[in-house]
Amino acid sequence: MEQRITIIGLGVFDLTVSNKFYKEKFGWKLLDSSNENISFFQLNGILLSLYPREKLAEDATVSPKGKGFKGFTLAYNTRNKEEVDSLFEDFLNKGVKIVKPPGEVFWGGYSGYIADPDENLWEIAFNPFLPLDGQGNATEVT
Amino acid sequence: MEQRITIIGLGVFDLTVSNKFYKEKFGWKLLDSSNENISFFQLNGILLSLYPREKLAEDATVSPKGKGFKGFTLAYNTRNKEEVDSLFEDFLNKGVKIVKPPGEVFWGGYSGYIADPDENLWEIAFNPFLPLDGQGNATEVT
Repeated sequence: MEQRITIIGLGVFDLTVSNKFYKEKFGWKLLDSSNENISFFQLNGILLSLYPREKLAEDATVSPKGKGFKGFTLAYNTRNKEEVDSLFEDFLNKGVKIVKPPGEVFWGGYSGYIADPDENLWEIAFNPFLPLDGQGNATEVT
Repeated sequence: MEQRITIIGLGVFDLTVSNKFYKEKFGWKLLDSSNENISFFQLNGILLSLYPREKLAEDATVSPKGKGFKGFTLAYNTRNKEEVDSLFEDFLNKGVKIVKPPGEVFWGGYSGYIADPDENLWEIAFNPFLPLDGQGNATEVT
């Protein structure tokens, strides 16, 4: 099994609302392969997929019941600290739910959290110890 | 905001157990930057991070309470159908929890689901409509 992933799938309550969030708040563009049942966003080598929560559970043959903390976060790292502040200013202006305003964190970085319409947590962070390449990929040499 | 992601962070019940799962069942190698508090796996341009669930919630300043379906899945796409079967045979031999045995699916692919020790769902799929490049990246032209 290669050390890679292909798709992050988020089960959403309302596909239209979530599409709007990622398009308008993040400024991301939907792939043409998206349709009224499922959405795809091309990220760096992987796809972000949005799919109705009940149907996602059904596809995996598990119960759709669940609540509270989902036990996962997605992180978007910036190239400098100022970019974090700038993104939060933009989120604030656009009415995005700020979960944790940005600030210095114990591990030496600068980060904050926002939530999407399904309370999926996005950490927006600058990590001076994790350089990004020109395409924005995180590639740490072991 | 660029259309990319840096880290998928999973909040785990027991870091040692989860490390063992990803190392032994997936055959993945930990990055040297991992320590007793946090684990990192280098994926294709992004990192998978494992962190204690309570601490992940604390970092995001949210309640750690939550149960049931987490509303997200991670997908590992293969280059052909046979590879899906081969991976499931391996998972079965290694005692990985099979959530949904592989089979043909309505959208024209072939897929199944397994769960990690925290019930994080991994879909193992062959999607004939989503070609992977030499490095295993999914890059769909819009």
